[in-house]
Amino acid sequence: MKPVNIGILGLGTVGGGTAAVLQENATEISRRLGRDVVITAVCAREEAKAKQICPNAAFERDPLTLVAREDVDVVVELFGGTTAAKDAVLAAIGHGKHIVTANKKLLAEYGNEIFRLAEEKNVMVQFEAAVAGGIPIIKALREGLAANNIKSIAGIINGTSNFILSEMREKGSAFADVLKEAQALGYAEADPTFDIEGHDAGHKITIMSALAFGTPINFNACYLEGISKLDSRDIQYAEELGYRIKLLGITRKTAKGIELRVHPTLIPESRLLANVNGVMNAVRVNADMVGETLYYGAGAGALPTASAVVADIIDIARLIGAERSNRIPHLAFQPEQVREQNLLPMSEITSSYYLRVQAKDEPGTLGKIANLLAHEGVSIEALIQKGVIDKTTAEIVILTHSTVEKNIVSAIFAIEELECVEKPIVMIRMESLHD
Amino acid sequence: MKPVNIGILGLGTVGGGTAAVLQENATEISRRLGRDVVITAVCAREEAKAKQICPNAAFERDPLTLVAREDVDVVVELFGGTTAAKDAVLAAIGHGKHIVTANKKLLAEYGNEIFRLAEEKNVMVQFEAAVAGGIPIIKALREGLAANNIKSIAGIINGTSNFILSEMREKGSAFADVLKEAQALGYAEADPTFDIEGHDAGHKITIMSALAFGTPINFNACYLEGISKLDSRDIQYAEELGYRIKLLGITRKTAKGIELRVHPTLIPESRLLANVNGVMNAVRVNADMVGETLYYGAGAGALPTASAVVADIIDIARLIGAERSNRIPHLAFQPEQVREQNLLPMSEITSSYYLRVQAKDEPGTLGKIANLLAHEGVSIEALIQKGVIDKTTAEIVILTHSTVEKNIVSAIFAIEELECVEKPIVMIRMESLHD
Repeated sequence: MKPVNIGILGLGTVGGGTAAVLQENATEISRRLGRDVVITAVCAREEAKAKQICPNAAFERDPLTLVAREDVDVVVELFGGTTAAKDAVLAAIGHGKHIVTANKKLLAEYGNEIFRLAEEKNVMVQFEAAVAGGIPIIKALREGLAANNIKSIAGIINGTSNFILSEMREKGSAFADVLKEAQALGYAEADPTFDIEGHDAGHKITIMSALAFGTPINFNACYLEGISKLDSRDIQYAEELGYRIKLLGITRKTAKGIELRVHPTLIPESRLLANVNGVMNAVRVNADMVGETLYYGAGAGALPTASAVVADIIDIARLIGAERSNRIPHLAFQPEQVREQNLLPMSEITSSYYLRVQAKDEPGTLGKIANLLAHEGVSIEALIQKGVIDKTTAEIVILTHSTVEKNIVSAIFAIEELECVEKPIVMIRMESLHD
Repeated sequence: MKPVNIGILGLGTVGGGTAAVLQENATEISRRLGRDVVITAVCAREEAKAKQICPNAAFERDPLTLVAREDVDVVVELFGGTTAAKDAVLAAIGHGKHIVTANKKLLAEYGNEIFRLAEEKNVMVQFEAAVAGGIPIIKALREGLAANNIKSIAGIINGTSNFILSEMREKGSAFADVLKEAQALGYAEADPTFDIEGHDAGHKITIMSALAFGTPINFNACYLEGISKLDSRDIQYAEELGYRIKLLGITRKTAKGIELRVHPTLIPESRLLANVNGVMNAVRVNADMVGETLYYGAGAGALPTASAVVADIIDIARLIGAERSNRIPHLAFQPEQVREQNLLPMSEITSSYYLRVQAKDEPGTLGKIANLLAHEGVSIEALIQKGVIDKTTAEIVILTHSTVEKNIVSAIFAIEELECVEKPIVMIRMESLHD
């Protein structure tokens, strides 16, 4: 099948990330999509840098020239802002190009106009990356939950603010100090207003509100209150009462009308949203049939955002210019690309382990056990005598570092042979969930 | 646009739920899809019950007759099991019908055969409801994360087991006792083997593994270890060491091959998965570009599962028999269905509130504040004197019950007028996140 051709507007953080994802995962993407994605043209500030990032793409200085090119099927708008971006997107739609954009401000402020023109011209405008970065929340709202009446959405959708609040809570620091730290780490802009005063979260919750309730986009109606006036004392008091303070975007359908607001919010510490820390994002959706669902992931960053941009490109590529209907394949990859891969037997998997051993409470027992583990190459993270079962028997709990399962199995077998140990030893696998 | 006609096989829990969702949310579904979904035929054990649930649908006693009907575009297989279900699905595909199924066992055991025939006959087989009930995880894996090389998946994907483990931890009860409780509550079957020994989770992680790595479905290679032998002592020791024990389905691509396994697993208590309790499900995906994402929601139940079944029907209906390309609308609802709705001003929203008041530490102050709140109809959940700022000033924290914002604003205004109170009063909104 012939490739789908894209033109990228802007090679900043997200634009560079998009080029990187398309290059790095070209094979995997083609295995799923059944065709290649080719960057045929780019528009950026510096030609030299553009040539470095996309050596095979034509360079265009003028976005309006790029969006008119015949060899561009999809225009990927990653300029940001609402001036050049708006002109380029409207012009591209005018030329019948499909659009992928990560630009929440553009959609929150001019989305109605853009979508109206897109309907007229019968083109698609996709914007997964505009809300919560790499989390496929737009897809969940438009497709996954399409059988539901959505009742409310509450989201941690600004990573900068969430990082600052997480740090204020953990360290008891003042807002101004943590902001400086966030700026040093690159988590906050030199001018952080947009993030910390709730504008960014407001754009995102406004877009989600429209998707949830079937209304036009109405950013002007969104109440915005940021975190800059939060006192760390309130964070501390809230915690003592069992709450965390998070900057939430909230929208809810009530009998009186729709609520649409961004503000610091106390939420009970037992809720999953309360435990979303650092720069991570999460969106909770409550819907009449499915109940509560929650979507968590990276809300910003070059590669996570590009993951969403490229997913949108793939969605469009399935629907356009294909020789046959290019449906989503059953097993995610094109049938001819589904292939057997080596499936590891359990003896070959890698894990860390929890062991509980009942053994005679006598000198030398621990040493013998530790030696047998070491003999199989299993290193110990913790070894704790948990309790005495009766006068002569103690219970020992061991956490191991990561090892291949056959090693721990051999070690357990050897330990069970010790005269001072009672069979069987309890073995439970552990996962750090970091990879 | 003409309706899409579906035939339902089986009107048990999920079948009944599907009929209910289609009826209850018919308007909302048509607003999104742009056409109606009509149940034209059903096959169930009891004709009388079927007529009650779907009065306008033809009743067929024989599934093979239903799947051959000309007035059925999509066959929704909700029999469960692998005998009648398999025959009916293969026959339906033979007749060129598209399939929606919630049957994880069928796909885990016969998926390769079913998908092969579906490719040959050019029909779609959708199965969102087969994994993690109402959570749109199949959509995330096949579409939302399509730009990524997926590295690993770890999921709490059996609600029965998760309920039992949550109860064992909270109450320190033994497995057998909690199992009886779960059976009484309807969370566990009379014969619970399938759930507690990991078979169900194994079916689901096997399906996700194929989607993640582009392999055929290979349930025989999945290692299964359930929770029936877990000792509540291990749950307790794990907790003392900072871990929770969860039944996880895990699949991971390693340099040596693919891991595919279900077993009780210690995970650090700070991870979101560790805090997924009761019958809820959650799936964590780690992928190269987006990093960690997590999807949480109800993994079973009539309506949550039906939410996924109907989403699949909608996906298929967008692609078949439509007079024009019926793309996913930009704002989730068909353009002509997007309409203004009343957006509430902040004064009209409903919330509970955290207030922090600095006031003179003298008799009567608390009473005056409480009276002014009561005067505006604001009831107090908690009122705590948090600390003394200096010799004469105390800090009071108040949590209110739910009220309309204009009431709390009036109350704050009145309290700030008190001579014993210092301006300004700090007000932060609270959300229980239960609706």
